[in-house]
Parts: sequence; C-alpha cells; structure tokens
Amino acid sequence: MEVDRVGTFSAYFPIWNKLSGEEQRILEDAVTHKTVAAGTLLHGGSEDCIGLLVVESGQLRAYMTSEEGKELTLYRLFERDMCLFSAACMLSSLRADVMVEVEKDTALWIIPPGVYETLMKTSMEVSNYTNQLMASRFTDVMWLMDQILSKSMDARLAAFLLEECTIEESDVLSLTHERIARHMGTAREVVTRLLKYFQEEGIVKLSRGGIEIMSRKKLSALAA
Amino acid sequence: MEVDRVGTFSAYFPIWNKLSGEEQRILEDAVTHKTVAAGTLLHGGSEDCIGLLVVESGQLRAYMTSEEGKELTLYRLFERDMCLFSAACMLSSLRADVMVEVEKDTALWIIPPGVYETLMKTSMEVSNYTNQLMASRFTDVMWLMDQILSKSMDARLAAFLLEECTIEESDVLSLTHERIARHMGTAREVVTRLLKYFQEEGIVKLSRGGIEIMSRKKLSALAA
Repeated sequence: MEVDRVGTFSAYFPIWNKLSGEEQRILEDAVTHKTVAAGTLLHGGSEDCIGLLVVESGQLRAYMTSEEGKELTLYRLFERDMCLFSAACMLSSLRADVMVEVEKDTALWIIPPGVYETLMKTSMEVSNYTNQLMASRFTDVMWLMDQILSKSMDARLAAFLLEECTIEESDVLSLTHERIARHMGTAREVVTRLLKYFQEEGIVKLSRGGIEIMSRKKLSALAA
Repeated sequence: MEVDRVGTFSAYFPIWNKLSGEEQRILEDAVTHKTVAAGTLLHGGSEDCIGLLVVESGQLRAYMTSEEGKELTLYRLFERDMCLFSAACMLSSLRADVMVEVEKDTALWIIPPGVYETLMKTSMEVSNYTNQLMASRFTDVMWLMDQILSKSMDARLAAFLLEECTIEESDVLSLTHERIARHMGTAREVVTRLLKYFQEEGIVKLSRGGIEIMSRKKLSALAA
C-alpha cells in the first residue's frame, strides 16, 4: 500500500530546515511513502539498494546472518530514525550484508539512493549529517562488539531483556526462545537453559510464548 | 622525535589535489610529523583525541579491550591509511573505546582535530572523503563481526595466519600464542590448543616464539 503524503515528510527529515528551497523541492519530488507490515524483509543484504528509509512510526530491526542461519541484531530503528544500510550502494566503501526487517507495522519514507547521493555532493549539511548518522550506527555496532567480547551470555541476555522492557514499556514480553536466540546470535538451547536458570533465581517467570520479568533489579545486576 | 617535513605531507593526503589553495595552506600549517617506535600506545580510548593520523610508513593496529583485558584487533593501518578514531571527538556521534598501537616503527602525520573539523564544514570533498573513510572502517568491523558470528575459532585462526603471511610477506611468523590471542579476542590456551592441532595436521610447524606455515593450501581450506 503506497500513499502520497509528501506534505509531512519535512517534519521527519532531521535537517530539513538546513536545506535550500531547491534541495527541499528535489527531496519532496523524490520521496515515496509506504506502510509495511510486521515481518516484511525490507532490505536483504548488500545487493539490495532500495534507498534511505526514514521511519515515521513503527519499528525496524537491522541484523546480520551467519552462514548457518544464526542471526544477530545490530540495532533497532524507531520514529525519525534513518537507515543508511538500505542505501549502502551510494557509499562505495560500505560493504556489509545487513538485513532490515519490519518488527512492528511501520510507516516510512523512502529516499531514492541516487537523489540522496546527489544531495550529499551538493549540500555540506547532508554530507555532514550522513557522517554523524554513520558514526552513530558504527557506535551501536562497536557497543555490540564490546558486549560479545566482554560479557558472558547470561549478562547479554539480561541486558537484552531489559532493553525489550524499555521498548515495549512492559514487564511482560511476548518473545519465544527462538526469537531471542535470533537477536543474540546464539542457539535456542542456550537461551532456554539460561531462562530456566533465571526462573530458578526468581528473576523471570516463563509461560508459553512469553516471559514475565519478576525482578528488574536482579536483571540489572546481572547485566552490569 | 619530531621533525618538520610538511613539504611532503601533500603526497600522503589522499584528496590533497581537491582542496583549495587556502585549505592546503591551513593543513600545511597545522600538521606535525612524528616517528613512533613499535609498542607505543598512540590512542588510548574515547577520552583521547590527538587528531587524525596519516601513516607515512610503518604499521598501526586498532583494537578494543574487554573488561578482563582480552583484546580484539579491529583493523590495521598501513602507508597512506588515515585513522579516524584518534580524532573521534570531532564526530559527536562516534563513541567507542578503540585503542591504537604502533605494531612496527611508524612515521606519521597528525592533523589536529579542530583543524580537520573545520575543513569538514567548509570542504565538501573533505566531508565526503570522511564518509568514505568511516564506511570503510565500518566495513572492516562488520567483516570481523561476521567472522565471530559465523566462523569457528580454528577457521578464524587460519584466516588470521594467512593475513599475517600476506602482511609479513613470509611463511615464517614471529608471533607468540599470547599475541595471537590478543588479536583474536580469545585466551592463550585456546590458541595453543588449536596450533598444536594444526601442527598434527601438518599445517604449521611450531618453534619458540615462531610459527612456520607448512601448507597455505590446507590453511586456506580451513579458513573458507
């Protein structure tokens, strides 16, 4: 489902006011608006180049996959976030097989890669904003790398559950063990074993397809 | 030891010819030249901000450390490479504790972060070059993440030894097991166990403080 709602795009593009009238017109003419259902794969790796995604509402997940199909969540994108990897073709030095899927029904704007690439070359603001954007995703990935290098799996699981509570604004999470394993780049069995241990310690309560957090305090202590 | 040799800096700055005369003068006035001995820690994490490093000759290693002191090599820098993390303070969104050490005696240029930051704001060329630079390091780190996610430790060790052979242009490597463990983010015992297995398979020959590659072919098969 595609709807023409370019009129409000300006409110979602962070440096809109720093663009010239001409640049604003170019963008307005080029962007398309889309609503995509949870579960949709928006960007399937380095071969894809649909364009820059600007999230109006909803939730996207950027992740990588291993040869054996393990997944690892790199970061999430929420309202007003921009996704650079879905337009990686415009940056010749950026080569990474990042996938982007829709986690919750999402409304978004798509800026064609060629249009953004041109703007990067004519507007200092766009170029420097892109720098900050990439630096910020790079920081996310470095944080994750540090977690993987430094933390035990139980600490990483605790940190993941806390993050989910924040995103969902709830202590009850609808998450299968399989789904958690796909976020963390590990096997389902590992998640199941750790969650059972968490339950024995009174940290969580497990039910079919769901996890209830019983003690955020103990979870925070574990994650630290 | 500091020597004034600004006269040749232009040959090592990749987009020198795309700068204006004024920008070239600003850079020439600001850069300093240094020679640093192997083993020197040039950049000690996110608090440091000595400036952009441009390698004239030698070899640098960018790595991260875990809380327990494990290290993981992120990438190496050689002649004409530029190090952005040593000037991360100029990119407010870039926050990562990356360390940079001198692996081989190195001659380099240092561009003060303030000077480069100003250039990024006045020169489209510098801004877009910085984008490509960051994208290229990002790609290195994503490749490493993929290795960690996808590959077994023996495959990663095989890939590391092959890379060392390429860098050193030799099949005889002066590397301790401890040193390899610090590149790979693992424990020395793990490296020792794997190397012994490699030796039993006729892939390497171990000696005090050194490793000789006996079969690049078997090593390549393992790494794939």
